[in-house]
Amino acid sequence: MRNIKLIIEYDGTRFHGWQKQPTILTVQGELENLISQLLGEEVILFGSGRTDKGVHAKGQVANFHTNSKIPGEKFKYAINNHLPNDIVIRESREVGEEFNSRFSATGKEYRYLIYNSKIRSPILRNYTYHVPYKLHIDKMQKATSYFLGAHDFCSFMASGSSVTDTVRTIHDMCLKNKDNIIDFRVKGNGFLYNMVRIIVGTLIEVGAGKINIDVVLDIIEAKDRTKAGHTAPPQGLYLERVYYD
Amino acid sequence: MRNIKLIIEYDGTRFHGWQKQPTILTVQGELENLISQLLGEEVILFGSGRTDKGVHAKGQVANFHTNSKIPGEKFKYAINNHLPNDIVIRESREVGEEFNSRFSATGKEYRYLIYNSKIRSPILRNYTYHVPYKLHIDKMQKATSYFLGAHDFCSFMASGSSVTDTVRTIHDMCLKNKDNIIDFRVKGNGFLYNMVRIIVGTLIEVGAGKINIDVVLDIIEAKDRTKAGHTAPPQGLYLERVYYD
Repeated sequence: MRNIKLIIEYDGTRFHGWQKQPTILTVQGELENLISQLLGEEVILFGSGRTDKGVHAKGQVANFHTNSKIPGEKFKYAINNHLPNDIVIRESREVGEEFNSRFSATGKEYRYLIYNSKIRSPILRNYTYHVPYKLHIDKMQKATSYFLGAHDFCSFMASGSSVTDTVRTIHDMCLKNKDNIIDFRVKGNGFLYNMVRIIVGTLIEVGAGKINIDVVLDIIEAKDRTKAGHTAPPQGLYLERVYYD
Repeated sequence: MRNIKLIIEYDGTRFHGWQKQPTILTVQGELENLISQLLGEEVILFGSGRTDKGVHAKGQVANFHTNSKIPGEKFKYAINNHLPNDIVIRESREVGEEFNSRFSATGKEYRYLIYNSKIRSPILRNYTYHVPYKLHIDKMQKATSYFLGAHDFCSFMASGSSVTDTVRTIHDMCLKNKDNIIDFRVKGNGFLYNMVRIIVGTLIEVGAGKINIDVVLDIIEAKDRTKAGHTAPPQGLYLERVYYD
């Protein structure tokens, strides 16, 4: 069978996340149903990983096996014509049979947008986290350096998660502020459940002066979820890109 | 009676425009009802002008007369607590009785966002105009210069409009491109019905090579709607600011 790789953008507002669930609207569920119907065969879509309810993706990756003879790069046109307007296939192509969206991934990039202004923004409400109090950007920027490199990120994993190896490597982290929008980006070899949102929540508490910059390293070393900041809400989070060799 | 000025942001997606209409959801209708209920008196809201279905505003201005004793700058908090999440009052203050949002206005600034990429964007779908074909930004930028100054903009007014004085002055127009988003801004002393959207449609046709740059002046001088480009759709348009002396 042929193996087709898709790069997918979606607006997560309306969906209960990526992962297929019976009777609930999810991105994987919508895509699998539609592709199966189009191709007349039951297709299973393998995603690079889950995204939560309300989280967006510019570059989610998924692959599926098929007997269809449609050329790899043509799948996106065939599928896009039938998708709802909050999902789109940005790229499609045929890949080797060994390719698996999840297990072949070597890293991911996430983005998180904060709207830092006293008054909430109707236009940005589903695409940013509204933080109404003053944030010191310079403090947040300084704090990012503590996260770089390989660390046990147990303090930044949702409690109750069953993952045992909690060491991850962060390759790059940056934070910029323009027109009251704080644009945070992070690249790493992998992320624990809610890790990006807990890092963002912690940086916000650093920016607000609730957490001292010097304490960030202690929080990492504590390996204790209760030491880190709050979990920033889903609508500010974007899965930007999944990396493969 | 006291006169209260409001600066209003709204996401136009869900509304049938600004202007109140019976049994139809509009921004003015929502605000008037809510303020009247809150203050226990029938309030009439005077807007700076209409916006169409799907058009957004960062800085719509409206005023109303009231006997309420709430301090001017406190109105926004009282009202915002009860507004749906796609409308917000950014500023409120008491102004002189002679102030009228529409007739006191000396100018307006609009913004228009185009998403120029082969594949549509789910995340930007309600906030940009998706143009899938190649646009030459430099041509569009050059063409903006023809619009500056005082002109009879009859060619750029929706046909059927009953306005007779169609001369308007454009003070500033600029167009930038970043990450496939073309960000167009225009300031002027006033705008005819659909004028910004027809200018944008015309610039897009210049960028696509369908209209030659040299022809733009002829289109203005023709005073004929059929000579100009198409009307760009509402969801890319933002009323950014209304100016007063």
